[in-house]
Amino acid sequence: MTRDLLDHVVIHPAKRLTAKLIGTLSTLRTDDFETEPVEQLNLALEGISGDRHAGFTREAGAREPWYRRGAKMRSGRQISIVSPEELWEIGYALGLPPLEAGWIGANLVVEGVARLSFLPAGTRMFFPSGASVVVEGQNAPCRHAGRAVARHTERPSDEISFPKAAKRLRGLVASVEHAGPVLPGDAVTIHLPEQWIY
Amino acid sequence: MTRDLLDHVVIHPAKRLTAKLIGTLSTLRTDDFETEPVEQLNLALEGISGDRHAGFTREAGAREPWYRRGAKMRSGRQISIVSPEELWEIGYALGLPPLEAGWIGANLVVEGVARLSFLPAGTRMFFPSGASVVVEGQNAPCRHAGRAVARHTERPSDEISFPKAAKRLRGLVASVEHAGPVLPGDAVTIHLPEQWIY
Repeated sequence: MTRDLLDHVVIHPAKRLTAKLIGTLSTLRTDDFETEPVEQLNLALEGISGDRHAGFTREAGAREPWYRRGAKMRSGRQISIVSPEELWEIGYALGLPPLEAGWIGANLVVEGVARLSFLPAGTRMFFPSGASVVVEGQNAPCRHAGRAVARHTERPSDEISFPKAAKRLRGLVASVEHAGPVLPGDAVTIHLPEQWIY
Repeated sequence: MTRDLLDHVVIHPAKRLTAKLIGTLSTLRTDDFETEPVEQLNLALEGISGDRHAGFTREAGAREPWYRRGAKMRSGRQISIVSPEELWEIGYALGLPPLEAGWIGANLVVEGVARLSFLPAGTRMFFPSGASVVVEGQNAPCRHAGRAVARHTERPSDEISFPKAAKRLRGLVASVEHAGPVLPGDAVTIHLPEQWIY
């Protein structure tokens, strides 16, 4: 019976963390990959208006080999979230200063969470305006980001070395759950869901 | 440094399971809570067309006390998935035959997964047509379901005893990731993501 199996599941309770939003960035045109700092971001349920990744849906790409390239699919990656701690680490691994959040297309820079990239799917981040986002998962390697890093460092090899150095340090993708503006200096209240291993 | 912390994270690799879709149900009117068996379901990116829970967005309710009741929010619960194994268990706990999937508003009945309700957020289910759904989390207790069960069993106390008996057995909520039809008899390929405890 299932009930017997359940006895062996260790459920780690939901918990809360606090952090600080120290940067907000957006693409200036929807065909840009890199993002630029902006004074505030208006998070809508569709994502960040005018940003490359806005929309409830998007086209499938290399990350989804199980769908036809270009097929319409649920987005799941409206928002990219990184931490200065992890940007520092990626830079350190590459022999560089801390990586710039904009080079890799980040939208939110959240400081004060150890290994931000490991916040589990279903984690919610709440902002003072009432805006919130829900974490969909770790951000996967991306050649756009490697190329952008290599262009800025003027080291062509970084196109390949960046994805390796950034593995599990490249932050999170998230969807907007409740709309509102967010801006640098905002306190971030983070709700982790219950966790277990299936 | 974050890197040191990462050394202590046990990452359970992604894995696959197979299962079988044995039932497809939908609400007949959007003001219905209970679902009725249908020959097939057309999963669209917005959810199940005509179903009570269709839409990229919905109104916040009692499950989201952190939002104003009725505020527009990301849905995250287009699709309700249950298993016959867990419906049997809930019925057993209540001294009843297996619970009917439609009484509690389920859309998909998936057989062959031990403790289905514990499939982690980010799990994907793929169907032969190309349709897929992504698990958002466990379905939380709901008074609608308790009332519906009590109406069918003609035992008023089931309105209260159902949510207790169904805790962690009530299945999953999911969003459509790729559109397509699904019908009873479909094989279901289930991709679990990497897992860890934060």
